[in-house]
Amino acid sequence: MKQKRRGITAPLGFQAAGIHCGIKKPNLLDLALCVSDVSGPIAGVFTRNRVVAAPVLLDRHHLRSRRGRAIIVNSGNANACTGEQGLVAAKHMATVVAEQLSIPVHHVFVGSTGVIGRVLPIDRIAAAVPTLIARLSISGGDHAARAILTTDLRPKTVAKRAKIGGHIVTIGGMAKGSGMIHPNMATMLAYLTTDAAIAPAALQHALRSAVDHSFNCITVDGDTSTNDTVLCLANGLAKNRPIQQGTKPYRDFERLLTDAARELALMICRDGEGVTKVVTILVQGATTTAAAKRVADTIATSNLVKTALFGEDANWGRVMAAIGRSGVAINPAKVTVRFDDIVMVRRGVGTGLEAEQKIAQVFKQKEFTITVQLGQGQARAQMWTTDLSYDYVRINASYRS
Amino acid sequence: MKQKRRGITAPLGFQAAGIHCGIKKPNLLDLALCVSDVSGPIAGVFTRNRVVAAPVLLDRHHLRSRRGRAIIVNSGNANACTGEQGLVAAKHMATVVAEQLSIPVHHVFVGSTGVIGRVLPIDRIAAAVPTLIARLSISGGDHAARAILTTDLRPKTVAKRAKIGGHIVTIGGMAKGSGMIHPNMATMLAYLTTDAAIAPAALQHALRSAVDHSFNCITVDGDTSTNDTVLCLANGLAKNRPIQQGTKPYRDFERLLTDAARELALMICRDGEGVTKVVTILVQGATTTAAAKRVADTIATSNLVKTALFGEDANWGRVMAAIGRSGVAINPAKVTVRFDDIVMVRRGVGTGLEAEQKIAQVFKQKEFTITVQLGQGQARAQMWTTDLSYDYVRINASYRS
Repeated sequence: MKQKRRGITAPLGFQAAGIHCGIKKPNLLDLALCVSDVSGPIAGVFTRNRVVAAPVLLDRHHLRSRRGRAIIVNSGNANACTGEQGLVAAKHMATVVAEQLSIPVHHVFVGSTGVIGRVLPIDRIAAAVPTLIARLSISGGDHAARAILTTDLRPKTVAKRAKIGGHIVTIGGMAKGSGMIHPNMATMLAYLTTDAAIAPAALQHALRSAVDHSFNCITVDGDTSTNDTVLCLANGLAKNRPIQQGTKPYRDFERLLTDAARELALMICRDGEGVTKVVTILVQGATTTAAAKRVADTIATSNLVKTALFGEDANWGRVMAAIGRSGVAINPAKVTVRFDDIVMVRRGVGTGLEAEQKIAQVFKQKEFTITVQLGQGQARAQMWTTDLSYDYVRINASYRS
Repeated sequence: MKQKRRGITAPLGFQAAGIHCGIKKPNLLDLALCVSDVSGPIAGVFTRNRVVAAPVLLDRHHLRSRRGRAIIVNSGNANACTGEQGLVAAKHMATVVAEQLSIPVHHVFVGSTGVIGRVLPIDRIAAAVPTLIARLSISGGDHAARAILTTDLRPKTVAKRAKIGGHIVTIGGMAKGSGMIHPNMATMLAYLTTDAAIAPAALQHALRSAVDHSFNCITVDGDTSTNDTVLCLANGLAKNRPIQQGTKPYRDFERLLTDAARELALMICRDGEGVTKVVTILVQGATTTAAAKRVADTIATSNLVKTALFGEDANWGRVMAAIGRSGVAINPAKVTVRFDDIVMVRRGVGTGLEAEQKIAQVFKQKEFTITVQLGQGQARAQMWTTDLSYDYVRINASYRS
């Protein structure tokens, strides 16, 4: 029987496993491990929150050597706001894996997600590592993807393949987080693996760009978590000539990585029983990309816009109000707003009741696009948002009970 | 029978009325007028939204002479995103009042609140002005306060009296807006009247300060509306010596005005069937007031914090995460967080399960205080927030239907 190489085990030379170690309720997977057959370059992008969880501090430290081989992640406990004790626990988690795999401890990366401020049950994790290692397999990507979830409804995995520099290169990935809907701690974790051979600096550059055009374009509630982490581990087993920045293979790789990251990001948006809409916010004609992004972000995170999406209330005035309060020096008299193809605002003024009736139909779709033309320059930005539903309130009002 | 001088008609020499003119459904008051017996200094603070409604543009223009005598306000239609036509309508609204009262048009101020982007039914308003003027009375403050409401559940009026410079001075006021709960267009309107004699510059300065310590400390959803307006009209009939900045009478007046504004602001917070909590966020020990305010604002507007308040889930990790992502260069190791008197976080670390059980009780109260000590300086800021409830979603998902 052919083994399924999915998610993080899709590229050559990666094994993974996911088991229950005793943090969550019985039978729920809560511990994942990913190991490459050989060590290789690793890149990381972390939360910008000033309150940083212990695993993020440890990963940043280990990332200095720019090489990695294993990633261990627990769910159910964030190991955040746990002080010195938390750092010791995170380090212990890496050490146990390193010793049992006989690899350097700084080649092991650690992730945690779950409730903030509770002491990590490190003994249960340590005791489970032998089993976790025994379960490693090239079809373990699915189990690992399930073991990193918290309130997510569905596991999120991706696999992308392309010819780069004459060799088949594969990128695999898994993520957790459910965007605006079930943000629990708003924590977003994503782990990407690839068999590409690539220079460490090129890998870091490509990951930064991919994250900026994917995970940073979905509004995970405006709430950056203490634990947000994206890692990409490359083991070179595709045997391509090592990719360097500024080359065509580099651009091909960056595109493939961005595609993979974007697919995971949209899975995060769509996940959750509460989601009725995923809406694309496209802002054009800004003077700078930062300005375009700021306008898009203000629309995407407005509770008034998001409740209108949920209620299918074609309340375009709320979009105009969000554009106006974004802090960008827009000129209302130059603003055009379209809902899919329907122009609802021209030069800052509503185009009338007929257009309103048409956009009422647009609001009934599961996915549509709001396009804002600022008429000031050439810069643009795109974001994805979801509606704000009863279930958002229900799930987040009782996350820990 | 003694007439009730409440709200904006509490000070000497003010009359008001509120009637139905045909913008809202029959029997709902939708047009208010306030007139002083004599003209006097007027001060204004307006929305910082770049998309500005026609009445705000007109008021800013009329405010240049710093004198006023009448304020006319309609509800049910915001006259925003209505272009040139909207400006003509706002001007017409002021002109009709000016002509019928035989006063200069720039002494008349205009307010509108309601749906954005619909043409203002100016003919209905103009036709109703004679009736509105005929109904003016010194007990009309209550009717006027009801005529400016949209989704508010309760009218909001205030009256404050104090001896200033040896004379009894009265400040009256009315407001609309229901904060996080029924923000409809998030529009907040407040009109203050006083019989104090005061220099125009002193009045403007006092109003700016009062607004900064009241309306700007409640989080009206983060959504600044296109119509937000606060005006204060002073007619000098208390016969005190005109108040000048930098004097004790000035400080007394500013305090009285701030008290009145804060009472209206808290009424906005508490209004609405969805509110189960009004929580004070107090941030201390910041390096600057702006930094303290930014941290307070990030906590107060976090959907994750607000749903936890609704669910009475003592999820203090969400408060820490909000502090960390505020953009202020805080040092987690110096942060202390208290819920009422219970220290839950000390030097960035949770103080344990016992404290968590205690703060669970704090979360059950209708009102309580979250105090954040940043440990970096002496600056502080205070804000008020409410919870995010099912009713918030329900009301805002179907505002116009």
